[in-house]
Amino acid sequence: MPTSHADARYGLTGTMRATPGNRDAVVALLLRDVAELKPAGCHLYVVGLDPEDADLIRVTEVWDSRQAHRDSLQLPSVRAAIAEAMPMLTGEFTRTEFSAVGGLGLPE
Amino acid sequence: MPTSHADARYGLTGTMRATPGNRDAVVALLLRDVAELKPAGCHLYVVGLDPEDADLIRVTEVWDSRQAHRDSLQLPSVRAAIAEAMPMLTGEFTRTEFSAVGGLGLPE
Repeated sequence: MPTSHADARYGLTGTMRATPGNRDAVVALLLRDVAELKPAGCHLYVVGLDPEDADLIRVTEVWDSRQAHRDSLQLPSVRAAIAEAMPMLTGEFTRTEFSAVGGLGLPE
Repeated sequence: MPTSHADARYGLTGTMRATPGNRDAVVALLLRDVAELKPAGCHLYVVGLDPEDADLIRVTEVWDSRQAHRDSLQLPSVRAAIAEAMPMLTGEFTRTEFSAVGGLGLPE
């Protein structure tokens, strides 16, 4: 459990809103090729649903670095998932960066 | 990567605000006994810092269930950490629940 911030990794947490009835289809797209993110430097990619809001999807991610995350957006599987998901999203996104300094579930 | 929501686990993401200069001491308390959370049903406990706000701490957690999380608050180590941290917190908390339905980094 590194506590020095030099070991901090790049974290992102945010939401996207699906158009009514499309949330699960978008979730399936987000999860389809998620295993490919690991070799790209992703330590965590958690997809969550909101118990009160049937269209909202929450994603929390931790990457080696901001650049690793940015580079991943060029992966063919990620580009394909984004292209397929966009028509099922309203365009309302929230996005917060954080430095992941440690805890349970993050590889040492 | 379970996508059926029956497999969903209980997620929490939120922030706490340290009093100026105490953020790292609070982070150290949050991480001190974090390994004890796993046998209590915790799959993920990620502590993050805010790049723009030197007093803010973000914690994202995933548990077997809401009850597992609630029960963990009775663990001696958790009670001790909370008691020691409280004097270094302003009392400003944000807290959002979610159902973690899958992704990278969550045990199958």
